[in-house]
Amino acid sequence: MQSWALSSVLVTGANRGLGLELVHQLARAERPPRYLLAGCRDPQSTRAQDLMNLAKSFSNIKVLKLDVDDFGSIQECAAQAEKILENNGLNLLINNAGASYSGALNEITPESMMNSYRTNVVGPMMLTKVLLPTLQKAACLNDEFKAAVINMSSIMASLELFNDKSGTAYAYRASKTALNMVTKCLANELKPHGIISVSLHPGWVQTDMGGEKAPLTKEESVRGILQVVSKLSAKDNGSFLDWKGQHLPW
Amino acid sequence: MQSWALSSVLVTGANRGLGLELVHQLARAERPPRYLLAGCRDPQSTRAQDLMNLAKSFSNIKVLKLDVDDFGSIQECAAQAEKILENNGLNLLINNAGASYSGALNEITPESMMNSYRTNVVGPMMLTKVLLPTLQKAACLNDEFKAAVINMSSIMASLELFNDKSGTAYAYRASKTALNMVTKCLANELKPHGIISVSLHPGWVQTDMGGEKAPLTKEESVRGILQVVSKLSAKDNGSFLDWKGQHLPW
Ligand SMILES: NC(=O)c1ccc[n+]([C@@H]2O[C@H](COP(=O)([O-])OP(=O)(O)OC[C@H]3O[C@@H](n4cnc5c(N)ncnc54)[C@H](OP(=O)(O)O)[C@@H]3O)[C@@H](O)[C@H]2O)c1
Ligand SMILES: NC(=O)c1ccc[n+]([C@@H]2O[C@H](COP(=O)([O-])OP(=O)(O)OC[C@H]3O[C@@H](n4cnc5c(N)ncnc54)[C@H](OP(=O)(O)O)[C@@H]3O)[C@@H](O)[C@H]2O)c1
Repeated sequence: MQSWALSSVLVTGANRGLGLELVHQLARAERPPRYLLAGCRDPQSTRAQDLMNLAKSFSNIKVLKLDVDDFGSIQECAAQAEKILENNGLNLLINNAGASYSGALNEITPESMMNSYRTNVVGPMMLTKVLLPTLQKAACLNDEFKAAVINMSSIMASLELFNDKSGTAYAYRASKTALNMVTKCLANELKPHGIISVSLHPGWVQTDMGGEKAPLTKEESVRGILQVVSKLSAKDNGSFLDWKGQHLPW
Repeated sequence: MQSWALSSVLVTGANRGLGLELVHQLARAERPPRYLLAGCRDPQSTRAQDLMNLAKSFSNIKVLKLDVDDFGSIQECAAQAEKILENNGLNLLINNAGASYSGALNEITPESMMNSYRTNVVGPMMLTKVLLPTLQKAACLNDEFKAAVINMSSIMASLELFNDKSGTAYAYRASKTALNMVTKCLANELKPHGIISVSLHPGWVQTDMGGEKAPLTKEESVRGILQVVSKLSAKDNGSFLDWKGQHLPW
């Protein structure tokens, strides 16, 4: 199957972890996207230094301020993205920004539940909503082109794979499972517009979130993810894939 | 299989719809629970009139003020429940209170997403958390006794049953899917305490939420639900059942 050309990509949470590595590998790709938009909560902070340095070396990288917890910030980011893209649409949105919450019942609070949902579900969803016209533009410009929304989910979202040995991280799990339902709803609603939506599990990866014991490096995970993304087709719409392209059960 | 005796039950959202019918049928059961606690957001309002009238006819019914959106209210309700139950634990918690949110992407707001999650997920979860010592008491009092948590979910939460014809009610679906993950986590964490947790789909029922076109009456649905509840056993822990006792796919 023919790969689709990635001409314009927006990655959220791009200042560290998988997000930064995604921008890194996309910038160095054989055919790098013309527009490589890197959403970052606080571009001025030291946490964004690596991303800012990367952006100095690649003129196609544009860093956009984006806090997915803040709807105003989401709207501003989308407006900026549209301006940069001019009349070219966005053909790949990677909703990568996410926050981890551990904790069993005795540790859980209403606030941790709500915060987790805001960052991991409401943010990706509202960003997709406000970027819809821009995604639609990419989907229409060229028949060979498609537009896609990738929601960074987790194997911890899987209800079927849950077993006795699964730890209980209520806030994180519940939010990622809900994100999978958002993927399903988006897949259904955006299909007529030529936009596909997929939930993706990146593997257990050595990042601040994944920790040092994780078996995968960021480089390996992102290489896999970008392979999977490059091979996406209409039949993948609404599915739950891992970084190797394997289907995960809901 | 032997039915387990329901000696103390708390139903949330008990002033109308399925909650009221649950209290109604439990009160009239052959062996009614000794304690029948009916959670209700606003016992003074006209919306609670039918419940208040019912409570006048059955001395085991105690109406408790409970707004599941408000953690303070949840804590107070649990304290009141403990007082009423004296040293008897609670052996059935039915997290029935819920709110419906329709709406496709163009209608969805961060607020509707967050509100839906607060009512449909965070509320049930926090109530279970604060009632845990009381549930544990029931689970321990007698070997034949079990304690159970029923989360009122919906077939609309099923990722697997989602299809092209499924409408997109993002906020409602995402919250109920997340609730299913909470059920899974509770099932795992509370199993050692002898408490089972189940997600239950009541069918499509004629209530304010279900509307007039629904095929099932409240009476039929609740008769089914109480049959299913009476037959619950350890093997049902962590499953997703409908009002006829059939397993639904996640
Ligand atoms: N690592 C794993 O093993 C693993 C496994 C399964 C799924 N995932 C998922 O993969 C994604 C990336 O994970 P990671 O391992 O790279 O995590 P990470 O190292 O913790 O990085 C998280 C990224 O998300 C950003 N972020 C968090 N909250 C944000 C907000 N409100 N607005 C904007 N950005 C925000 C962070 O920015 P700041 O620097 O500003 O905080 C950071 O860039 C997440 O969605 C995660 O759930 C990871
Ligand atoms: N009917 C169906 O076809 C259907 C199908 C699938 C699942 N369900 C689920 O079954 C459950 C009961 O549904 P229903 O049809 O009986 O709904 P309903 O007729 O709309 O009644 C909802 C009940 O929940 C209460 N409630 C809502 N928000 C609350 C809050 N914050 N705190 C406390 N109580 C609150 C309402 O109290 P107020 O009067 O104070 O608002 C009312 O008692 C819900 O969880 C629903 O999602 C229903």
